[in-house]
Amino acid sequence: MSTLNLTLMTDLYEMTMMQGYFKTQNHEVVVFDAFYRNNPCDGGYAICAGLDQVIEYIKDLHFDENDLAYLKSLNIFDDDFLEYLANFHFSGDIYAIPEGTVIFPREPIIKVVAPIMEAQLVETAILNILNHQCLIATKSARVCYAAKGDGVMEFGLRRAQGPDAGTYGARAAVIGGCTGTSNVLAGQLFDVPVKGTHAHSWIMSFPDEYTAFKKYAELYPSACILLVDTYDTLKSGMPNAIRVFKEMREAGIPLTFYGIRMDSGDLAYLSKKVRKMLDEAGFPDAVISASNDLDEYLIESLKLQGAVITSWGVGTNLITAKDNPAFGGVYKLAAIRDENGTFIPKIKLSENTEKVTNPGNKTIYRIYDKNTGKIRADLICLVGEVFDPEEDMTIFDPNEPWKKTRLAGGSYTLRELLVPVFKDGKCIYESPSVMEIQEICNKEKDTIWDETKRFVNPHEIHVDLSKKLYDLKNDLLNELHNLQED
Amino acid sequence: MSTLNLTLMTDLYEMTMMQGYFKTQNHEVVVFDAFYRNNPCDGGYAICAGLDQVIEYIKDLHFDENDLAYLKSLNIFDDDFLEYLANFHFSGDIYAIPEGTVIFPREPIIKVVAPIMEAQLVETAILNILNHQCLIATKSARVCYAAKGDGVMEFGLRRAQGPDAGTYGARAAVIGGCTGTSNVLAGQLFDVPVKGTHAHSWIMSFPDEYTAFKKYAELYPSACILLVDTYDTLKSGMPNAIRVFKEMREAGIPLTFYGIRMDSGDLAYLSKKVRKMLDEAGFPDAVISASNDLDEYLIESLKLQGAVITSWGVGTNLITAKDNPAFGGVYKLAAIRDENGTFIPKIKLSENTEKVTNPGNKTIYRIYDKNTGKIRADLICLVGEVFDPEEDMTIFDPNEPWKKTRLAGGSYTLRELLVPVFKDGKCIYESPSVMEIQEICNKEKDTIWDETKRFVNPHEIHVDLSKKLYDLKNDLLNELHNLQED
Repeated sequence: MSTLNLTLMTDLYEMTMMQGYFKTQNHEVVVFDAFYRNNPCDGGYAICAGLDQVIEYIKDLHFDENDLAYLKSLNIFDDDFLEYLANFHFSGDIYAIPEGTVIFPREPIIKVVAPIMEAQLVETAILNILNHQCLIATKSARVCYAAKGDGVMEFGLRRAQGPDAGTYGARAAVIGGCTGTSNVLAGQLFDVPVKGTHAHSWIMSFPDEYTAFKKYAELYPSACILLVDTYDTLKSGMPNAIRVFKEMREAGIPLTFYGIRMDSGDLAYLSKKVRKMLDEAGFPDAVISASNDLDEYLIESLKLQGAVITSWGVGTNLITAKDNPAFGGVYKLAAIRDENGTFIPKIKLSENTEKVTNPGNKTIYRIYDKNTGKIRADLICLVGEVFDPEEDMTIFDPNEPWKKTRLAGGSYTLRELLVPVFKDGKCIYESPSVMEIQEICNKEKDTIWDETKRFVNPHEIHVDLSKKLYDLKNDLLNELHNLQED
Repeated sequence: MSTLNLTLMTDLYEMTMMQGYFKTQNHEVVVFDAFYRNNPCDGGYAICAGLDQVIEYIKDLHFDENDLAYLKSLNIFDDDFLEYLANFHFSGDIYAIPEGTVIFPREPIIKVVAPIMEAQLVETAILNILNHQCLIATKSARVCYAAKGDGVMEFGLRRAQGPDAGTYGARAAVIGGCTGTSNVLAGQLFDVPVKGTHAHSWIMSFPDEYTAFKKYAELYPSACILLVDTYDTLKSGMPNAIRVFKEMREAGIPLTFYGIRMDSGDLAYLSKKVRKMLDEAGFPDAVISASNDLDEYLIESLKLQGAVITSWGVGTNLITAKDNPAFGGVYKLAAIRDENGTFIPKIKLSENTEKVTNPGNKTIYRIYDKNTGKIRADLICLVGEVFDPEEDMTIFDPNEPWKKTRLAGGSYTLRELLVPVFKDGKCIYESPSVMEIQEICNKEKDTIWDETKRFVNPHEIHVDLSKKLYDLKNDLLNELHNLQED
């Protein structure tokens, strides 16, 4: 199976800058951090996803003859630079937070340590992939949280923003917790469950609804979910569905996985009526599934209203993350390695304090409460810093320096979040399967309290700086401020 | 250049229904309409886009060995059906509204006339492609309308919902009016202009801002747009940029295309200050370009505030259509052809009047005012109906029957919107180039008044039904209603 090579899927300015570095003979090794600033939907967390596609992209990076001819045709790039590109491959290191991990704002999800030309080229594609998949995985986790253990199916392919959005979006949705997808291609590519029964058009293509149901039940007796709202859910769809279920039972066909789906109307009211009809007809184990513009808020509300829906099909609002369709991840220069191999930290100023970057070659430790296993805080620090969890630790809010937290020695455990993925251009990481990542993600979601998972005003888990990083950042800020005063 | 085959990019239920039709030996030819119900962003129109990708998809439809093996592994599909799929190709007819055309709710953008199995399979991919590209083309047209003739660049690749969303989204944005994109791959694939200069990281990788500007100007003197907000726009960026421009002038380097870009801060205030600084330094023709979370509303507001920005870079909000990220197109059964070749109309009921479909094998005429060339209304009618523009015409609102419009003979002209694209499975349509489609779209936008293009409460252009279609729909509704009463 071959896909389009994405080497040219980059912003033109990455390439004009690359040529600039080439012409100025700048081969410095730099550190870039990819991170995001705000949790989607004003939530308390996000879910990391997309790394496997980033790995494929990096592995496949090369400029073929067509690419070079196209670049030449732009009359921007000189032959010596194009020759360099002809032999281009990624030679740097990449560190990343594994897919399925719960993540928080301002911590590097991916860290690229590479010669500046290479690190610059890959910015756009890395952000594109991460921004999309982190977004949908996060939305999916929210929707599944609202469904409180009911199955949630990803049904949004037709409303996704193009084929990749539908297909990689389905992948991300499964990572976030969806039990499956309607997208057959996603099923094939990622070995995830695919589900689906029939549409209104199936019903309309038969002379009447009963015949349509009857035929469907004959064809698919072991996965017989009938869509009951083509004409009238309670007056037509339900009586016809129950008639078919009864005939199946009378014919001795085992009713293993069967039930109805509703795609319109007042789902709270209808589901209660439908449950009653099914129970009274002797079908208490019939599935009631629902779709129709669902999202986490609507599912939560339906649950509060006592809707007896056991399976949810979520389309548009999940696959586009409709109320928050962009993740907003950025990729910022954090350090430049000098001739002695020392990383010289770099900082990007902004009038908005939150937008000031964290300088230096960094890593992240997750601090867990030893008793509960829940996340206490995340700690961004400089590579090489050593912490002993048997000793007390003080961590600092990066924006509000008076906010310090003291952790008692012995009460916490530490886990480094960034793992090596590429070393000297070679991939040294093997991605788990998507279903394995879903399992990882389920465990990850257990490391945060409901207070952080709720939709309104969730509790914020702190991402703090080590003392060393905090001081370094402060020194750089003062230095730059003094420069501007001069 | 090879792309992933999208044959399996369909909802599983399309395939279970297909097998159902196969098993029940249903080879009836049916009519499906793809249409949408509401203009994005509460606007007055939408722009049609995506047809070329639909054509590629239909041409490429086939199940290869891997696909068949995967489908078999699902234990849903029988060997006889899989054998049928092995020889599957599309054999039907497709009609479509050409890309770049202004479109309105409820009119078929694509009409598929094909054996039911084929027509059903293609639903999901057609909707996916149309929903995405119509959405972004429409958003782009809105943004360009706000920019009142200034150049608008599509800069959103990194925030798009995956690679296709960035790349086909760039295509759609150019169709809607953008002068170019930052996405190099989109430039290569669709032969559209690509643009871009440098990022903050370029500035940060040099010892100081002046040196970074100076180097950039040496490398790219003929397209020298300097990013001035890395440290401080007015105190640092502008003085350094002007110093470089002066040095270029002194060195006799022609200043053809040059200027500055701002990516943060108060763009209205800063642009006026920046314009003054440039003018006073003798650079009245320097470009002032701006980016930073722009959309049509913000551009309109900046213009009202007297911002003197001449070029706009629009990212996230355009490439995701952030305030309305789903187009909502649907695909509904409209007719089934009987053994005599007559199309038997089908209607889908809904408690929501607006969701009741228009039955029958239909086409659309656009009615133009003869004097102004502007659109008077669109008319959906049955195929075969003939209208003489020299005669008076009465058209009917599909939802509110008392709303009739009478057009005087001789005052209007007619144009059929749907054109044949596939005939008996063969493509008989050649897509214009993307830049040609942009030109078509520019002319199309001239056929609607500002009243329809404005953002708040735009004037609605009516999509009405012919007398014959109106009566047919009414008869079917009464018939179904009587059935339910029985």
